Amino acid sequence: MRTIKLTIEYEGSLFVGWQRQKNGIAVQEVIENALEKMTGEEIKVIGAGRTDSGVHALGQVASFSTNFPHDITKLRDGLNSILPETVAVIKIEEVQPSFHALRSSKGKHYRYKMFVSPIKRPLYWGRAWRIKYDLDLDLMSKACKLFPGVHDFKAFCAAKADVKTTVREIFSIQLAVSHEGLICLEIKGKGFLRQMVRRITGALVEVGRGYRNISWIEDLIEKGQRAEAGITAPPYGLYLVEVYY
Amino acid sequence: MRTIKLTIEYEGSLFVGWQRQKNGIAVQEVIENALEKMTGEEIKVIGAGRTDSGVHALGQVASFSTNFPHDITKLRDGLNSILPETVAVIKIEEVQPSFHALRSSKGKHYRYKMFVSPIKRPLYWGRAWRIKYDLDLDLMSKACKLFPGVHDFKAFCAAKADVKTTVREIFSIQLAVSHEGLICLEIKGKGFLRQMVRRITGALVEVGRGYRNISWIEDLIEKGQRAEAGITAPPYGLYLVEVYY
Repeated sequence: MRTIKLTIEYEGSLFVGWQRQKNGIAVQEVIENALEKMTGEEIKVIGAGRTDSGVHALGQVASFSTNFPHDITKLRDGLNSILPETVAVIKIEEVQPSFHALRSSKGKHYRYKMFVSPIKRPLYWGRAWRIKYDLDLDLMSKACKLFPGVHDFKAFCAAKADVKTTVREIFSIQLAVSHEGLICLEIKGKGFLRQMVRRITGALVEVGRGYRNISWIEDLIEKGQRAEAGITAPPYGLYLVEVYY
Repeated sequence: MRTIKLTIEYEGSLFVGWQRQKNGIAVQEVIENALEKMTGEEIKVIGAGRTDSGVHALGQVASFSTNFPHDITKLRDGLNSILPETVAVIKIEEVQPSFHALRSSKGKHYRYKMFVSPIKRPLYWGRAWRIKYDLDLDLMSKACKLFPGVHDFKAFCAAKADVKTTVREIFSIQLAVSHEGLICLEIKGKGFLRQMVRRITGALVEVGRGYRNISWIEDLIEKGQRAEAGITAPPYGLYLVEVYY
C-alpha cells in the first residue's frame, strides 16, 4: 500500500462543504468517487479539516492509502479530468505511511476576504463578504493583536460544536488591503473550532464599524463565554489557504 | 422625460450576453424587467455595446428615458434590490437628453485575464483563461505595440459580423501581471468589432507560446485578411472595464 497526500483547490459555492452530507454534494465525495474510478478501489480520504458549505480552499489537504501501481502524476491528471471544474488536485505526493492529513497537521492558514461598499458587487458575489458601513481598519488591526496565543475561544465557537476543549492556539492575525481594495484577514493557528475564523472576523467587523469597542473583544477572549459573541461572517468569504505539516 | 445613464457591473457566466436572445436570459432583459417594475413604464435601454455570453462587465453603460418622478438614487437602490446577485447598477446619473450610450461613446476599455498553469484552477474558473504552456511575456508586450492606431482589423473580426467597415482605432494595448500572477491585457480603443479583443488576445497568445512569430501579426494587421487569424480566446476571460464619453 502507498500513502498519498493530495493538495486540493476548490470553489465552495456549490458544495455542502468538505464532509459528506445527506443534503447535497460534498468535496470529499467527488474526490472519493473520482479515486474509485481511477483505482478501482473503494477509498476513504481523510481531510485536514472540515470546511462549511460555501467555504473555498486554495490548499485543503487529504490523505489515503492505495495500491495504485503507476506514476502518481498519472493519478493526479486522471483525477483532474474526472473532477468537476470547481475542484482540482493541484499537488500529489507519496508520503510516509504514518502521514495522516488530520493528525499530522501542525496548523492552518485561513484567509477571510471582505470589502466595503454600499452597493452589491456582482464580481465578488460568493467570493467575499460585502460590508455596508465604513470600517476603521487601524482599530481592527489593533484588535487583531489580542488573539495570538493560547486562549479559551468558547465565545468564538459554533453553539453546536461537540468538542472536549475550546482552548486553541492562534499564531497570528493580520489585516491587509489588496491591490483591488479587498480587505483580507490572514489568520494562522494550530487548530480551529467550528466557525471560529468566521466568528473572529464578525467580532473584528463589529469593532471596525464602531458598534463594539476593543475591550469587548478582550472580555470575550478572557472570559471565554459564548453569550455575547457577535455576528458570524458568512462562509463565502472564507478560504483555507494552507495546512502546515 | 428624463434621460438616465446607468453604469452596470455583471458576472456574465449565467447570461447569454448583454443583448436579448431567444436561448437564455440577457443582462439587458433583467435590467429592462427591473425598470418596468420600478417605473411602471415599458423601457428599452440602449447599451454601449454588446458583450457575448460569458463576458463580464465592471462598467457597462446603458441609457434610457423615463418619467420616474423621484430622486434617482431611489431608482438605483430599487433596481439593485430587484436585480439578481450577478447584476448591479453601480452608478446612476441624470444626463442631457442628447446622451446616447452607444452613439455618444468615445471609446472603451477592455481587460482580458489569463494565467499559465498545467493544472486547472477552480477559483479562476469562468473568470480567466487558463493557458497550458509557458508564455514569453516580453515577446507578447512587443507584439502589443503593433496594434495602436487606425487599421483594418478584418483579420480579428468574427466571420458572421455584419459591419460596413472593419477599420477601427486602437488607443493602446498593455500587458501587466497582477499581484496574484494573472496576466492582464488592457486594451483601449475607439470601437471594437465582434470578438475583436478575444481574437487579438488569441493571436498574442500564439506568439507568446512560440507557435507564431511577430511578423505574422504584422501581416494580419497590414493585409487585413481573415484567412489565417488564429484562435479566439474564450469569452469568460473578458471584462468590459469602462466606456468613455
